[in-house]
Amino acid sequence: MTQTPWVYLNGAFVPADEALISPFDRGFLFAHAAYEVTAVFDSKLIDFDAHLRRLETTLKGLEIAQPELDLRALHSELIARNTLQEGLIYLQVSAGDQGWRDFNGPEHVTPSVFAFVTPRTLIGEVAENGITAITVPDTRWTRRNLKTTQLVSQCLAYRQARRADSQTAILHEDGVITEAASANLWIVSAEGRLLTRDLSAALLPGITRARVLDLLRVEQYEVEERAFTLAELSSAREVFTTSTGVVIAPILTIDSKPVGAGIPGPVVRLVQRHYYTHIGADIDQYAWVQSD
Amino acid sequence: MTQTPWVYLNGAFVPADEALISPFDRGFLFAHAAYEVTAVFDSKLIDFDAHLRRLETTLKGLEIAQPELDLRALHSELIARNTLQEGLIYLQVSAGDQGWRDFNGPEHVTPSVFAFVTPRTLIGEVAENGITAITVPDTRWTRRNLKTTQLVSQCLAYRQARRADSQTAILHEDGVITEAASANLWIVSAEGRLLTRDLSAALLPGITRARVLDLLRVEQYEVEERAFTLAELSSAREVFTTSTGVVIAPILTIDSKPVGAGIPGPVVRLVQRHYYTHIGADIDQYAWVQSD
Repeated sequence: MTQTPWVYLNGAFVPADEALISPFDRGFLFAHAAYEVTAVFDSKLIDFDAHLRRLETTLKGLEIAQPELDLRALHSELIARNTLQEGLIYLQVSAGDQGWRDFNGPEHVTPSVFAFVTPRTLIGEVAENGITAITVPDTRWTRRNLKTTQLVSQCLAYRQARRADSQTAILHEDGVITEAASANLWIVSAEGRLLTRDLSAALLPGITRARVLDLLRVEQYEVEERAFTLAELSSAREVFTTSTGVVIAPILTIDSKPVGAGIPGPVVRLVQRHYYTHIGADIDQYAWVQSD
Repeated sequence: MTQTPWVYLNGAFVPADEALISPFDRGFLFAHAAYEVTAVFDSKLIDFDAHLRRLETTLKGLEIAQPELDLRALHSELIARNTLQEGLIYLQVSAGDQGWRDFNGPEHVTPSVFAFVTPRTLIGEVAENGITAITVPDTRWTRRNLKTTQLVSQCLAYRQARRADSQTAILHEDGVITEAASANLWIVSAEGRLLTRDLSAALLPGITRARVLDLLRVEQYEVEERAFTLAELSSAREVFTTSTGVVIAPILTIDSKPVGAGIPGPVVRLVQRHYYTHIGADIDQYAWVQSD
């Protein structure tokens, strides 16, 4: 970004490099914070209601008060001030600044609210040509259905991937896949069945995941929601991730071994066509998504 | 505190209410941060070398650069500026402010360093009269030997304890004790053996724990380091915690049931005498610690 963008912090819109919080904020001391990332396409928020609902679930789970704030208006204002056409809006709600440090904290502290935009092409290079992945053990806490800022496992997994010249990491517990480092994982099994893990505390209930499931069900395309193993992953015909940030990303190699033919397959292209249409994209612009 | 204390933040000593960091700091966005809490008694740092070594281990595990800073001098300066006689010094080293958000982050960012003091009586009411505890499932990540700011599990455990009119929580995985919410746990078993869990990624290698082990070994007092169960906990004659902040705390009830006779036992008093002597306290001042 050549120009300093506007961010929102605790009641004010300020230039990003002027935003400052207290280090006594519970978000900084305890990772006592929820967050959401919403996609913006054609300057419109995608599936924002679902993000608000998940935020509410996380805040309740973390015992953080709901911010008394019109979050939709806040997002719209960020889009307008930054003339954002395509990209992401990050929103973090922490348990607030109590002015000192103790684990409990007072029952009522005003939550801190921080939000900023990231301009980004949602349907681009990664969607067309795919990414590569490694597999790593999932070291996260046990309540992964809550979207918290306890993200060290993911930071380290991404760094490990980068050192292996890959773009993402697939997480597993004792050989059973949970999800990717910040995305849900889908495979087309050796038998040709489309699988993604069923929801539980083991993984994040992705908004893009839910939307893709809905879109496929409307088409009566069958999806099996269940846990699957590293062995099933390595024999899969296709593998792809869904997430707000990277949207729908074909995975072409895993631990340096090609997935199927090593190119994006027909099922991921089908999913991309449906999802891109859902967010309002003109899929005739993208020749590559037509081929299956 | 009636007077605003001095804190240290990224190169400067400032009044606590003027300390400010960027919300783009990786400590705030990802809990990508290590911390230590060192005890101060008679204005002297207790076992500071051990804290520095553990910090180094955590920083390495989190892939955060060692701060180029004399941390001992920093701590001494905080003691002097705040005329701290007895209490704690908190030190947090985060992966720094990269000015935007991505999981990977650049390979090299200057870490953020934040430190502040908490005046506190280390040998007081809690040491003399004990505390009460509840038991809760341990929901933390799997690398608990690293001391990170991913502390939501502990915050929620303390809050659950408070709602049950207790002061702390004992964490277990499938009935096997890991430790207390921010302290190591010790029991005197029904058979009279002193037990504390052996070190692994399942728990924090407490500095007070290590020191107590050393002091007891010098006395040829036998300690068994192994995992123990909720059943062993509930039949224990004595239960106590060790930590920097609460030092050595007898636990008198667990889930509302009395431990042993429901009063601090002879073993915890023995441990207290040795440890208080180690930090330089005059144990003749404390009549209660003599009784066993």
